[in-house]
Amino acid sequence: MSLPADNTALAAILNRHLTSLCREEGLSPETIAAGLERGSMVLLGNPAHGAAPVLIGQPARVKVNANIGTSPLCNSAESERQKLAAALEAGTDTVMDLSIAGDLKAIRRSILAACPRPVGTVPLYALARRCADAGKDPARIEPEEIFEEVERQAEQGVDFMTVHCGLTERGAARADEQGARKLGIVSRGGSLLARWMKARKKENPFLEGYDRILDIARRHNVVLSLGDGLRPGAGADAGDEAQWEEVVMLGRLARQGLAADVQCMVEGPGHVPLHLVRAQIESIKTVCHGAPLYVLGPLAADTCPGHDHIAGAIGGALAVWSGADFLCCLTPAEHLTLPDQEDVRAGVMASRLAAQAGEIALGRPAALRREQAMAEARKNLDWEGMRRAALDPAAVLARRAPHAHEEACAMCGDFCAVKMLRPQGTPWLFSLD
Amino acid sequence: MSLPADNTALAAILNRHLTSLCREEGLSPETIAAGLERGSMVLLGNPAHGAAPVLIGQPARVKVNANIGTSPLCNSAESERQKLAAALEAGTDTVMDLSIAGDLKAIRRSILAACPRPVGTVPLYALARRCADAGKDPARIEPEEIFEEVERQAEQGVDFMTVHCGLTERGAARADEQGARKLGIVSRGGSLLARWMKARKKENPFLEGYDRILDIARRHNVVLSLGDGLRPGAGADAGDEAQWEEVVMLGRLARQGLAADVQCMVEGPGHVPLHLVRAQIESIKTVCHGAPLYVLGPLAADTCPGHDHIAGAIGGALAVWSGADFLCCLTPAEHLTLPDQEDVRAGVMASRLAAQAGEIALGRPAALRREQAMAEARKNLDWEGMRRAALDPAAVLARRAPHAHEEACAMCGDFCAVKMLRPQGTPWLFSLD
Repeated sequence: MSLPADNTALAAILNRHLTSLCREEGLSPETIAAGLERGSMVLLGNPAHGAAPVLIGQPARVKVNANIGTSPLCNSAESERQKLAAALEAGTDTVMDLSIAGDLKAIRRSILAACPRPVGTVPLYALARRCADAGKDPARIEPEEIFEEVERQAEQGVDFMTVHCGLTERGAARADEQGARKLGIVSRGGSLLARWMKARKKENPFLEGYDRILDIARRHNVVLSLGDGLRPGAGADAGDEAQWEEVVMLGRLARQGLAADVQCMVEGPGHVPLHLVRAQIESIKTVCHGAPLYVLGPLAADTCPGHDHIAGAIGGALAVWSGADFLCCLTPAEHLTLPDQEDVRAGVMASRLAAQAGEIALGRPAALRREQAMAEARKNLDWEGMRRAALDPAAVLARRAPHAHEEACAMCGDFCAVKMLRPQGTPWLFSLD
Repeated sequence: MSLPADNTALAAILNRHLTSLCREEGLSPETIAAGLERGSMVLLGNPAHGAAPVLIGQPARVKVNANIGTSPLCNSAESERQKLAAALEAGTDTVMDLSIAGDLKAIRRSILAACPRPVGTVPLYALARRCADAGKDPARIEPEEIFEEVERQAEQGVDFMTVHCGLTERGAARADEQGARKLGIVSRGGSLLARWMKARKKENPFLEGYDRILDIARRHNVVLSLGDGLRPGAGADAGDEAQWEEVVMLGRLARQGLAADVQCMVEGPGHVPLHLVRAQIESIKTVCHGAPLYVLGPLAADTCPGHDHIAGAIGGALAVWSGADFLCCLTPAEHLTLPDQEDVRAGVMASRLAAQAGEIALGRPAALRREQAMAEARKNLDWEGMRRAALDPAAVLARRAPHAHEEACAMCGDFCAVKMLRPQGTPWLFSLD
């Protein structure tokens, strides 16, 4: 089988895990190899981390990522441990450490050690934090520091990294232009780099140094997640010039990565009204040569902070049905504060539900089997079967517990529609036979 | 202006409230009158209740209903009071009392007294409860009791009633047929009537007596909500013979209602996979002559009990974008137990978010104005503006409270993307000018 030829780390990991991957995904070795070869799939797995690798790219199962990490105002190692545990327990496929406060290297080390699934980061945050701690403007970051940081994190075992290589001076200027956008640049990495370019009047150092980043990524089988620094931060900005300027660039970079035997994903919007979701997803995948698409939401409305996991699940379900491969969770805390463990749990469940809804619409066999198991269990009032078929078995148990001795649920009781039509119903019903 | 001619109760209520309705909905008197005349809009408002009337049917704002009510296993007047208060505080447009345990007439009276918005019921539940309390099978309900109960509730002030008139012997048999459905009949009203028909070998008494029901509804301006007793209870059953048998009947009944100067809505699915939602909504509205469509969810997946408010919001957003007019909330308790006040609150917020997402996609001016206000407030880090634009201002306040003195949110702190590109940023940034 032919594979990205010079990526020996990928070849080794694939060789070791191919059988289990084929079984988990219900795909043949040839389908997986062909997907990796043409770049429509990526396999997350840095040998230095040693997590079980995760395959991203349809027709593999759509995957879900949970963001954790510190902020200057909520910086607690204990809370990060709890969030990681909550994300894993809720069934996340990967975790991103988006910490921007504290000893970032140590936090990353402890997350990598505790997380049996692939871990992603945004190396720019570590560079900017170092500046902030020294009272320096992030515009003072030197390009050489970028490569050092990327290499350091690759050596630590980071499995995938968001690098905002597609953000150009031209794109940033268009987003920042008077009257162009309702909400300018909302990506933290995007705004940091836009600031750097504006202050130094130079092109994006991640773009200029892309070859060197590719070289590091290949040696460690780090999957590059080509960041969308210009993603729309308001539904009204979705699909504007600035966004497409960057998307087109991401497509070029994905092709360049593939040619250099480096695995690349593309990051996508953002805030996108429902009627634009399919057009965006299909267009981004086309211009990016089918590279796996990693979407944040998209949020189908801007106006429900406190419930953004739902706004994201609405857009996310439609995005999966339209071809998105990887959902980044939004939590109820989005736009307001740092999530806690309950928020992370709610976010992972909402994203898994969105993925399931999208995969049902796509007719994916594993998703349909799960639905069928639930319908059968409901027909038989088989509560253990419902628990097993549920995406969140713990929620079924918890809700059911106070009335676990009853055959029907506590909503309907003796009005249970299922029992009503059984030949032998509840005590107050005569036999229908 | 021409109106359903013989419905004097409707004429009186419209006459009194037309100016405020036009203002609230941003519609002209002619648009409202024409919608009511051709049956594409209904105005909920039984004079005996005296609630402010609510207009349903696009292009009026999409409305949201919250279900409350007792069950045999969770029967507490205090809990019902709390759920009603939670639903109103969360911004529901209407409330349905689906009580099936306790003194139903007294519960209904207290809900009508406490609820300033239209109240709906399912009169069949009261009839079935009376049977159950007497140890009698609901197949013993006599048709005459049905009309008495409908009249009694109309006199009490109930503004809209679900009547399962479209369920035929043929439809019930098709749903119940060996091998036809994964999950049979899941509507409580539908299963009660299917049992009645099966036991007595007679046609549905609600259908046979439709003229008498219309007569009562007209005298009290009760809006009939033509129930979908055969709605799919599993995504795999969506769009089957049994469902369409009933939908076609609902269309005939809606037309008959309109001819008799009675306002009718049509109830819709249920569990529907995403790829079928648009086809279902558009087809149901077509065959039902554009009568307002009142949908439960639809749930985009069966397998996330504990999070069914999200499964319903995904389908609901798509349904609104496809033409649905009225969303019945699902709560996190659905399929598991009776909701409590927190569940009701979560359900109303999820449905309001789904309606907003759908209305954005439809380009409705009021929905877009709200989005624009949020984007502007975010651009200015104007937290009071965000609170005002939010569908759930209380959630914004609660999440923001611990860090209310900070300009940026507690997720990003000094990495705030908005502040990063201001000429004068945070202390560690130099001036970009």
